[in-house]
Amino acid sequence: MKTVVCFSGGMDSTVLLYHLIAGGHSVKAISVDYGQRHRKELESAKSISQSLKIDHRILDLAGVGTLLKGSALTDRSVTVPRAEYDEQSLKVTVVPNRNMIFLSIAASWALSSGWDSIAIASHGGDRALYPDCRSEFLDAMRKALNLSDWNNLELLSPFTGLSKAEICKLGSELGVPFEKTWSCYEGGPAHCGSCGTCRERRSAFKECGLLDPAPYHKM
Amino acid sequence: MKTVVCFSGGMDSTVLLYHLIAGGHSVKAISVDYGQRHRKELESAKSISQSLKIDHRILDLAGVGTLLKGSALTDRSVTVPRAEYDEQSLKVTVVPNRNMIFLSIAASWALSSGWDSIAIASHGGDRALYPDCRSEFLDAMRKALNLSDWNNLELLSPFTGLSKAEICKLGSELGVPFEKTWSCYEGGPAHCGSCGTCRERRSAFKECGLLDPAPYHKM
Repeated sequence: MKTVVCFSGGMDSTVLLYHLIAGGHSVKAISVDYGQRHRKELESAKSISQSLKIDHRILDLAGVGTLLKGSALTDRSVTVPRAEYDEQSLKVTVVPNRNMIFLSIAASWALSSGWDSIAIASHGGDRALYPDCRSEFLDAMRKALNLSDWNNLELLSPFTGLSKAEICKLGSELGVPFEKTWSCYEGGPAHCGSCGTCRERRSAFKECGLLDPAPYHKM
Repeated sequence: MKTVVCFSGGMDSTVLLYHLIAGGHSVKAISVDYGQRHRKELESAKSISQSLKIDHRILDLAGVGTLLKGSALTDRSVTVPRAEYDEQSLKVTVVPNRNMIFLSIAASWALSSGWDSIAIASHGGDRALYPDCRSEFLDAMRKALNLSDWNNLELLSPFTGLSKAEICKLGSELGVPFEKTWSCYEGGPAHCGSCGTCRERRSAFKECGLLDPAPYHKM
């Protein structure tokens, strides 16, 4: 199969990339720059793609960022939640409809290249917080993508049934260079260790008994 | 209702805008610049929005255009079909997955603004050529958009059951300034009159017995 992968440079989509390559897929990767507060994830995506020698594009969607208000990922006037780690404080990091935008553009690239599938790393652990990570959403998108073109484009989402810890374990078996992946919402020289996504990452590694090789600030 | 309208500056989406305003909707309009061969449609969209005094944004998605190959709308090495007006020659003008990209970004803007709906002017006459104008596609998107966020976003597509001639008639009743709308794939000073979309436009006006006030080249 020839598969365009939605690739953020974080650990989940990096494992997805390695998983598909191990499964015999030809892959191309696409990242989206929608005016994030920092470019650490995009730099990770670029570096990982280069080491895998795969075609990787970063699409500039900063214009979309300017349409969005009230998201900590694009709006510097909103503080990244840190002290209170609960669902309410994490919700500020949601870019509305982000996955649909990402999938629709990956699909356009796949279709115009004559490729047969796209893939996204949404997983079980994202469900509670992000509506567009739910399998119901992905099933609806699967149908829409299938109807959007005369060529039936497939949407692969092999991690929907997995927890982040299970993805971490799979990545470890596949030899994923986790030290190159970036998760932290803050753009410091190392992972802050205390924002929502750092906490999720740390507990995933802890749960499967692995050491996270990524650099962290001393806490 | 508060509705973000996918607005190309062509006759169908201009009639949609007037139709929603007449129906009491608050509207904002969004256009997409994906590196089209010419900007006449975008200029029309801007001018019509200004005269209606509505919020209108043109989103620069030229980066998406660079991903696409083989489309006459973005690739200057492909000739716009003219002499042979049949389905095969028109297919070259299809940008894959264009409507999904457009809808997904309109939805992001609506959701981040706290608005409750988006609208698109897809209609019956587009069905045969464009897979992403079919009502089946729009129904799948309706479901995906509903699941993409905790707030249920509605997708309005009131023209799916209408022909282009019926849209033309409706626009005439609503006082749409058709002379400001742009349809031609070519970017000349006037409509060429012979490309696929010019022919569709001319037969729509002819079918409902109206004169098209838009300028045409002498043929």
